[in-house]
This record gives sequence, C-alpha cells and structure tokens, in this order.
Amino acid sequence: MPSSSPPLGDLRARQFSDWYQEVIKIADLAEHSVARGCMVIKPWGYGIWEQIQGRLDRALKASGHENAYFPLLIPLSLLEKEAEHVEGFAKECAVVTHSRLEGDGTGLHPSSPLSEPYIIRPTSEAVVGATYSKWVSSYRDLPILVNQWANVFRWEMRTRLFVRTSEFLWQEGHTVHSTSDEAIDETLMILDIYKAFMCDDLCLPIVVGQKTPDERFPGAVHTFTVEGLMQDGKALQLGTSHYLGQNFSRAYDIKFQNDRGTEEYGWTTSWGVSTRLIGGLIMSLGDDYGLVIPPAVAPRQIVVVPVIRDQNSQAAVLEYAQLVQKSCEALTWRGDPVRVSVDRIGGLQSRKSPGRKWMHIKRGVPFVIEVGPREQATGTVSIITRHHPQQSDRGVGLEMFCQQCPQMLEDLQKHYQKTSQQRLARHIHHFDELKSMESYFKEDPRPGFARVPWCASAMRHPILAELGITPRVIPENQKPIDPGMTCIFTGQPADVHVIFARSY
Amino acid sequence: MPSSSPPLGDLRARQFSDWYQEVIKIADLAEHSVARGCMVIKPWGYGIWEQIQGRLDRALKASGHENAYFPLLIPLSLLEKEAEHVEGFAKECAVVTHSRLEGDGTGLHPSSPLSEPYIIRPTSEAVVGATYSKWVSSYRDLPILVNQWANVFRWEMRTRLFVRTSEFLWQEGHTVHSTSDEAIDETLMILDIYKAFMCDDLCLPIVVGQKTPDERFPGAVHTFTVEGLMQDGKALQLGTSHYLGQNFSRAYDIKFQNDRGTEEYGWTTSWGVSTRLIGGLIMSLGDDYGLVIPPAVAPRQIVVVPVIRDQNSQAAVLEYAQLVQKSCEALTWRGDPVRVSVDRIGGLQSRKSPGRKWMHIKRGVPFVIEVGPREQATGTVSIITRHHPQQSDRGVGLEMFCQQCPQMLEDLQKHYQKTSQQRLARHIHHFDELKSMESYFKEDPRPGFARVPWCASAMRHPILAELGITPRVIPENQKPIDPGMTCIFTGQPADVHVIFARSY
Repeated sequence: MPSSSPPLGDLRARQFSDWYQEVIKIADLAEHSVARGCMVIKPWGYGIWEQIQGRLDRALKASGHENAYFPLLIPLSLLEKEAEHVEGFAKECAVVTHSRLEGDGTGLHPSSPLSEPYIIRPTSEAVVGATYSKWVSSYRDLPILVNQWANVFRWEMRTRLFVRTSEFLWQEGHTVHSTSDEAIDETLMILDIYKAFMCDDLCLPIVVGQKTPDERFPGAVHTFTVEGLMQDGKALQLGTSHYLGQNFSRAYDIKFQNDRGTEEYGWTTSWGVSTRLIGGLIMSLGDDYGLVIPPAVAPRQIVVVPVIRDQNSQAAVLEYAQLVQKSCEALTWRGDPVRVSVDRIGGLQSRKSPGRKWMHIKRGVPFVIEVGPREQATGTVSIITRHHPQQSDRGVGLEMFCQQCPQMLEDLQKHYQKTSQQRLARHIHHFDELKSMESYFKEDPRPGFARVPWCASAMRHPILAELGITPRVIPENQKPIDPGMTCIFTGQPADVHVIFARSY
Repeated sequence: MPSSSPPLGDLRARQFSDWYQEVIKIADLAEHSVARGCMVIKPWGYGIWEQIQGRLDRALKASGHENAYFPLLIPLSLLEKEAEHVEGFAKECAVVTHSRLEGDGTGLHPSSPLSEPYIIRPTSEAVVGATYSKWVSSYRDLPILVNQWANVFRWEMRTRLFVRTSEFLWQEGHTVHSTSDEAIDETLMILDIYKAFMCDDLCLPIVVGQKTPDERFPGAVHTFTVEGLMQDGKALQLGTSHYLGQNFSRAYDIKFQNDRGTEEYGWTTSWGVSTRLIGGLIMSLGDDYGLVIPPAVAPRQIVVVPVIRDQNSQAAVLEYAQLVQKSCEALTWRGDPVRVSVDRIGGLQSRKSPGRKWMHIKRGVPFVIEVGPREQATGTVSIITRHHPQQSDRGVGLEMFCQQCPQMLEDLQKHYQKTSQQRLARHIHHFDELKSMESYFKEDPRPGFARVPWCASAMRHPILAELGITPRVIPENQKPIDPGMTCIFTGQPADVHVIFARSY
C-alpha cells in the first residue's frame, strides 16, 4: 500500500534546493539533457507551459498584440550595434562558426567556416530592430505591437532546471511607438498583464515595480520587474518589461516620419516571461507532497483514478470512470471547459501500481477522483483535494460533485492566492537603519524581503555583497516618502523604498 | 479608387515563381531576414501557422500524443551514432563551436572553444533517442507518444520563403512501441491525420502513400509521404511519417524488458509537418488577386471594413462595425467561434486608404464585409466573398447574414476542397510506356503528376535526371497491378504504380 506520509518528509525545511530537485523529479516535470546546461521539458512540465502560454497569449492578443517569428541566428556585427546590449550578453553567447560537417576517416568535423559568425539569439532586440527598420517609415505604421514565442540561448555555468538553463522557452514582445509617453504606457500595461496573470492565475506571491539603475536590462532606459518570493525567502525575477527609449531605434535605425513631416526615431519597448515561471511555481507553492498547481494553469484539473479490485468489476468500474470524465468535461469554469482525464493505466494493471493516486498528487493535480466498485455501485465519487491529500471525501454523489465542481476549483484557486498573499505579507520586513537589516540577513535562518528607504547614490554599496543581497525592486504605488526619512546606506535623504533580498 | 482588376495580372500563368514571391509580399506573410536563408514570419503568416498548429495539435492530442520539449543543440558525437542519419544531414549542419565573445579592441570575436562542437538540430531523432533510452526500461513504459513544436535548422543554398529556408518551424513526433506492428500502425495513423488535415482543413490537392527506397528519410525503414500538387504542376512534399524499425533504438540504446522478461530494442517512428505547409497553401490555392485561405485555417474568417464618407457619419459607422463584429463573434462554425475583426484603420484615416478592402482580399480573408453610412442606416452589410472578389453582395440584412454565415463558411470550404480535387484529377496522367511519359515532361509546358507502372530495380534510372523528375510517391490503396503490366523503365514485371513529377 502507498504510504500516506509526505513523500518528501521535511526536506523542504532542511534542504530547500534538494527539495526543489526532488519535486521536479517526482512530478515528472523536466530533466537535464545531453546538451550542456539544457533541459528536456517532459510532458507534464510542458503541459503547464502550454497553459501559461494559452492564458498569457489571450491576454496579449486582447490588448492588441500579434505574434510573429524572427530568426534564431543573429549576425555578430548586428548584435554589436548596441554596445551596452552586446556587452551584457557577450559572456554567454553560443557562436555558430561553420555550415557543414565533413569526414576525414576519423569522423566528422566542422567544415565550411562562415564569413561572419552568428550568435544564437540570447534575446531578439537586435534582429527585431533590424527588421522593424524596414517595417517603419511613417507614423501611420505605428504602433507595432508584436510578440514571439521562442527559444533563446545563454550559456550558464551553474544551471538549475527551469530557473537557470542555457536554453529556455519564453515570449518576448517588441513594440515601437511614435511617442515616449505611449511607449512608457505600453511598458506599464504589460507589467499589469504580467502582474494580473501571476497573481490571479499562478497564485504567486509577487512584488511589482521598477528596477534600480544598476539592475536594468542592458540597453534599457527603465526596467520594470515582477519579483517573486520563494519559500526559502529568496527572490526570483519572474518577468520584466523594458522601456528602451530611442536606444535601440538609434542602433538599428528605426525611423518614422511624424505627422508634421519630420523624421524621428521610434520609441521602443521589450518584455518577456519564460519557462522560469514554472520554477517560480514550484518554489512558491510546492509542499512536502510535491508540486502544487493552481487550477487555472493545471494541465488537468481533475484526474479520475479507477480502483480495480478484481476481474469481475473491472469493466463496470472503467466504464463508470469514463462516465465521470464525460460528466466533468461538460462543465465549465472561468469560461473554459474543465480539463479532466482518466488515469491511463486503467485496467487490472492498476492493481499492480497502487501508487497511481499518489502519482497525481505529487504532480499537483488539484482534484484526484477515485472510483472503485463501491463508487460505481452507488453512483458516487471519492474526492481528494490536493490541498489536503490525506483526506478523502467519500460517497459524494456524482451529480452533486458536478454541481459543486466549478465552485471547488474557484475555492482552491482563491485558497492558493490567499496563502501566497499572506506569506508575502509575513516575509516583507521594514528596516529604517542598516544595522537591523544587517542582523536580519546575518541571523535569520531564512530571511525574506527587506524594504528600506534608499537614495540613488547608495548603488553598489559594499555591504550588499557581504550580505549576498541585491536591490530587487522599487515597489510600485509607494506613498511619497516621509520628509525626514534617510537612506539606510548613505544617511542622505531617501528617494524611495527599495526591496533587497537574496535571489536566484 | 482601388483598381478592381486582378492585382497580379497574368503573372501566375507567366512566371509562377515570381507570382509566388509577389503573393507573399502583398499578403504580408513573410520576408527574408538578416540571417542567411532564414525568414521573418510576419503576423498574418504566423497567424496561419497558429491555426495550423491549433488544429493539428488537437488531432494529435485526441489520438493520445502529448507535447514535450527537447534541446536545440546536439553534441556531434551523439548525432554520429546513426551513420546513415548523420550522413543525410552533414552537408547542412550549423555548427556551434564557441561559448562566448571576447573583445580585442577591434571588436568582439568567438572565444572559449567548446571541447566538442554542437549541431543545431536539423531534426531531433538523436537527442530524443538519447533521452528515451533513459525513459524506457519495461514494456509498461510503452508506448511513448510524444510530439514537439520547435524550430530546426538546415543550411540551404537556394532558399524560397516557407518552402525551403535554413530555419523553419515544425512539429516532430517521436514514438516508441513494443512491437513492430504497433509502430507501423502509428506511422500510418499519423499519415491519416495528416491526410485528413490537409484535405479537409487546408483543401490541398494531395496524393498519399509510401516513398520509394531511394527517397526515404536517412535512417528510416519506410517513409510515408503526403505530396501536394502545386499549380505549376510541381510536387511539394508536405509531410512525412517514418517507420524507423529498430535502427534508432539500436543507435541510441532504447531497450525494454518485454512481458516475458527478455530485453528487446524498441520500435520507433518519427513524423513531421512544417511551415512549408503555408508554401503549399499559397501555391495550391492562390490566384491572381493574391492569397486564398480556406476558412478552417484563416486567422480571421471575416474582416469588417468601415467605409467612412464624412465626419458626420463616422461615429455611427464605426459603432455599427463593432455591432457587426459582435454579432459574428457570437456565431460558431465547426464547433469554434467565428473569427472576425474590424479593420484597424477605422476612422477618417480609412478615407485616405481606399485600398483597405483590397488589402484583405489580397491576404485571403474569406469574407470581407463593408459597412458604410448606407449599411448603417439600413441595418445591412455588403459582402465580398474571396472567391469572387469583384462581386459585392449588397444590402444583406445583418440578421440574415448571421443566420447564413456558418453555411457560407462551410460552402466556401467545400468549394476549395472540390476545386483542389478536380485540379488534382486533371493533372494526374497515366503512362504505360516510357516514351509517352518522356514527351509529356519534355513537351507539356506545365506537366503535372505522371503515374506509371514501376519495379524496384528501376531506381535512379538516368532518364529521371534528364527529365528533372523524381519518384514522389507510391500511392496508397492501389489495386493489385495487372499481371501483364511491365515497368516503363526496365520492361520487367511491374510491382506497383509510382507517381513521378518535378518537385520543389
């Protein structure tokens, strides 16, 4: 019989990093591949990514964006056009230098050197910029509101599945506008879309706002960010939205004639979220049983597990499982059909694998429904909610379950939202002086976010490296700072509050 | 005023290849990029790809497949493990040799050579095979039915947008089975899915069947193919499904213990279709007005174009256009909501661009609905069907239109299917002797498909190169060949009928 004690024991409390890897393993999400630093995203992990894509894509389209596709390779000379930008990525570029393989008896070797090397895109501002310079000539061509779903590549020395891999999947939006104001509005609107998605759908504990200048995207004028609070207290940057001013339009010659007939450089933005969101999901919501997925982004919200006792009842139980599936499929929640499947090892084989129920719990399926001979005979279901995997709500009439199901999904979604909000509130600490922040990071076994008054001349203060922390975000919607408030680093009048934390 | 004569004149008849490029341009589908041989897929072209993806993905999932993601880069030594396979792709491999850029005062240069080069995947059998060898150990792990949507890379010297580009987007399925029969069934089931999709949804004129041995995928035991007939008579390979036997499982060590406890190599398949389908769509259905898209895969099936005459009626017309959009959006066709948008240049600006209607016709929008002051005042619409772009069906009541709309979409879809079927039938010619086939390909200004009796020893016959043709497909469901029938190349008893053609 399957053990019902938490399969990961107290590993999460003891060794968060090991726990993270274990969750990925037992939830069957991803694994390291033969290519250095690259991962294989397994079907269940990719299923979560498909849900993320689907929901975010809808929001981006609803706000006027279209998808397109730009090439994987960028000529080196093109990447070099924006100096700060290429500098930011030079140390992690995968360089393509040859265009074929040729044999010499000992095996195949790179052959036909390219006249100019190509870089596998670490991000696409350069190649998109070169393209937009052809698309834009008049203010009538603007705005350009384009997004792409793609893979990008940045060699990483120390990798962590989903959080930091050499190749990752993401969306990157690239827009051009005829005024600075409009570009800033776009940057902020995208930030709002990210925030809503991460709060409402992913149920993540996040703080949204601007980056301090030292943490900006290479080449950006302003970078806005969504910072997630992981259960080990560290911050994970979950998405960024950049106002690029005219930096990239100057580098890539994106010019338009305005309505007064004068030529101007366009104002551009770029923004993205990646498969890192799945890492954020694991580290924010996972528990001692494994992965937790909010219903909104669960590849399957319900899995029906047939429990076969003997050959006599097998056919009837399997048929009943199908009926339960069909009944649930006919339901909708938040405008979409409920996603439900029957555990695919459904026959007598399932006797040999009594851990099927636990497999789905470890994978974070919101509701696991067991149906055996008793349920079949009485037209009922046994419900296990991911939130209380030890409990089973037995003997619930199928019709009753179907009536309540959408509300149960809604309640579970809300529960995860609330839990995250509460955890976030508990782990943001306010400090008015450096000493207390210092002892917080030095003494607390799992420090979280420290919110402190800050001034711009405090950048790169030596204490930061000592404490292993960085400025994560200038939280949005701050009240004007009290006149007497001073920066904890410099003692000068503070400009704003900034959140500092350890981070991934 | 916009001209209503076909914008491409008789270019299609005169210079098919130029016409093809013009269609891509006026329909705003794609363009060449700064990276050699790579394309930028523009929003309207990518919108078609999204429709293709959406429909095919549903069919693949309905038949039990899941999506996953495998890495972009393949270590050279891994690719080399299947000799025939690497041989087939060696001449077009993009090779990654360095992992960073370093400056020397003159600019940035490749630095940090990799201990082993990586190849950007030309296809993923190698990296998937290495992964599956870890996933498979028992017959209980089988079948593995996984698909991925990804970009792949094969340097091409002569490129043609969508049809042959160095980078392209595709889906590639990779499956493992415990018996040969099951793997063959899978290969054929996928072929059926492709066939149904290309016939019913894309309305393409296609012939389905097996490849002759000389045209197989490098490493495959059998390759099945879907060959499309383009309007210039050439064949375009639109999709392939490969039965790989145990070739790749031996190379990549995909072994399982069968239910008798004996270790065996798995039986694998792979199969794919790519953005080339869009090239096939253009060349099969396009006309002298530009692109034609069957409603089933049109990013928008209806575009409402507001016709503004003056400032007085502007607001009312725009509001009415929204109403028309909303009314259409509430409709469904073939189970999905009707896809409709209002032309985005909707205000007085549209007076300055009277070609808006024609823009959408050139792009292949199935129905363009014009609404001006008269339509607004009378609650009617003017309908232009892509099939007869010169005609406008004026004064149709909005309610009446909404009632008829799903049937109109269905009729147009059927019309394109029928037209393609008829064209295909007209352009398959049967030849029983080499001479008549020879003169067909030498004298006919636009020869199509030649169906001839063939035997296996006729492979690579010198006349093929002279005529510029290749064996495209052994059509499926052939009647057994007449006993007296001889191969037109060898005079020996024929095995089957084979279709020969010029091809892309």
